[in-house]
Amino acid sequence: MIKVSIIGSGNVAQHLITTFQDLEKVGTEVELVQAFSRKRESLAHLLPFEQITTDFNDLQEADVYLITVSDDAIASVSEQLPFKNRLVAHTSGSMPLTMLKDNNRRGVFYPLQSFTKGKAVDFKNIPICVESENGTDFKVLEKIARVISDKVYGINSDQRKALHVAAVFVNNFSNHLFAIGNDICQKNQIPFDILKPLMEETVQKLQTLSPSEAQTGPAIRHDEKTLAAHEAFLDNENQLKIYKTLTQSIQEHGKEL
Amino acid sequence: MIKVSIIGSGNVAQHLITTFQDLEKVGTEVELVQAFSRKRESLAHLLPFEQITTDFNDLQEADVYLITVSDDAIASVSEQLPFKNRLVAHTSGSMPLTMLKDNNRRGVFYPLQSFTKGKAVDFKNIPICVESENGTDFKVLEKIARVISDKVYGINSDQRKALHVAAVFVNNFSNHLFAIGNDICQKNQIPFDILKPLMEETVQKLQTLSPSEAQTGPAIRHDEKTLAAHEAFLDNENQLKIYKTLTQSIQEHGKEL
Repeated sequence: MIKVSIIGSGNVAQHLITTFQDLEKVGTEVELVQAFSRKRESLAHLLPFEQITTDFNDLQEADVYLITVSDDAIASVSEQLPFKNRLVAHTSGSMPLTMLKDNNRRGVFYPLQSFTKGKAVDFKNIPICVESENGTDFKVLEKIARVISDKVYGINSDQRKALHVAAVFVNNFSNHLFAIGNDICQKNQIPFDILKPLMEETVQKLQTLSPSEAQTGPAIRHDEKTLAAHEAFLDNENQLKIYKTLTQSIQEHGKEL
Repeated sequence: MIKVSIIGSGNVAQHLITTFQDLEKVGTEVELVQAFSRKRESLAHLLPFEQITTDFNDLQEADVYLITVSDDAIASVSEQLPFKNRLVAHTSGSMPLTMLKDNNRRGVFYPLQSFTKGKAVDFKNIPICVESENGTDFKVLEKIARVISDKVYGINSDQRKALHVAAVFVNNFSNHLFAIGNDICQKNQIPFDILKPLMEETVQKLQTLSPSEAQTGPAIRHDEKTLAAHEAFLDNENQLKIYKTLTQSIQEHGKEL
C-alpha cells in the first residue's frame, strides 16, 4: 500500500482527495492517510476531522507528500516540513522540481488539467506528468498516477515549463476567444449555443488532422475583403487588436509551412 | 418534394451533395436535381454525368438554387442565372442576402461549420442559419434545413455578419492557438496528444459554465511571476505578441464583469 498525504486545500487538493476516496471504496494500492490545510473548514466537507491537520508537526508518516498549494507557496511549504529524506512532490505545471527544499527526495506530480470548482473531473482522461530525482521514486509516483489516470508521462522540468506555456495557449487563451465569441453573440441577440458545435468540431478535427492542416478562415485564405469587413465590424479595441494579431500570426505561420 | 439545385463544387457543395444523396436513400422530402460546376471533373466522383451541368443555361427548374461558391463570386454567379422569380440562396456566413441579384427571390442557407476536405461531417449537429425575404420562402429553406440538421435558426444578415466574426474567433483563431501549442510541444520533444484532453475539456466546460466563469490561468489570477516567466520563455515574436495581447484582454475583460 502506498500512503499518500495531501498538503493544501484548493481545487487540485479537493479533486485529488475525492478521487482517492472514490478509488479506496473500490480497492486500490493507494491510501490517502491525511490532508493538511491551514483552515480545517476548507476540507471539512470532504474529510473527517481526524484526517485533517492544520499543523505541519502533526503530519503522519507517508510514502508521498503531494504539495498542491499555489506556485508562490511551494518553496515555503516545503521548507516547513519537519522531516527529511521522504518523497515530497509538488503538483505545479510551472515550477521546477528544484523549487522544493532538497532535504527531502523531490518529485513532481502534475495533472495537466484546468480544475474549476464545482465542475467534476474524471482523472482517467487527465494526463499526469511525473518527474523525480531517482528511478525508485519515479516508480512510486508513476504507480499513483496510473491508479488515477490512463495517461501518464515522464516529463522533466524544462519540458513541463514548455508544456505549461503551451497549455496557457490551448486552454486559457482559447477560452478567452470563446468569451469574445459569447460577447459578440450577446450584443447581437444571437444564442451562444449556435457556436458550440463549431467549437467542439475545432477540437475534434485534431484527432485526424494537425492544427496547421485544419486551419481555415479568411486569414489563411488571405481573403482581404472579409478581413477588412471584420475589422470594420469590431468596435471593441481589445477584440480588434486580437483579430489583427492572430490574423498576422496565422498568415506568417502559413508561410513557414 | 422540394427540388434543390446546387451551384458550386467546393467543400460546402460536396458535403451538401453527399448529405442529400444519403438522405434520398432513406427517403426524404428533398430531392437533389442537379449540380453546376465550371469543371465537370470536380464533382464527377459524387454525381453521374447527366446530373452535373457546366452551363447556366442548362440549369433545370428547381424549388431552390443553393449558391455555394466563394464569397467573391456570389454576386457574379447570381447575375448569370438565366431565370427570374425563383428562390436563390447563398451559403455564406459573411455576405448579406442583398449580395444576390434581386431578379430572383433571395435567401440565405448558411451551415455554421468549418468544412475540411477529407473530413466527414454530420450535418445533424451543424447549425443552419436561414434567412429570406418572405415567409413562404423561409418555410421552404427551413424545411430543407430541418431535413439535414437538428439545429435550425432564423438569423438575419446583420446577425449573420456578427456570427461570422464570432466564428472566426472561436474556430479559426482558437485553432491557431492549438497550432502554437503544437509548435511548442514539437520544439520540446513533448507529444501533442498530452494537450488534447485539456483542449476537449476547455470546450466541454462551456456546457455548464459561461466562458467568463470558466476562465483560469495566470492572466486572470494576475500571477505576475508566471506571466513574466512565460514571456521570457517565448522566443518567437508572434507567440510573444499573442501572449501579451490575450493576457491584457483577459485582465481587462475580467474587470468589466
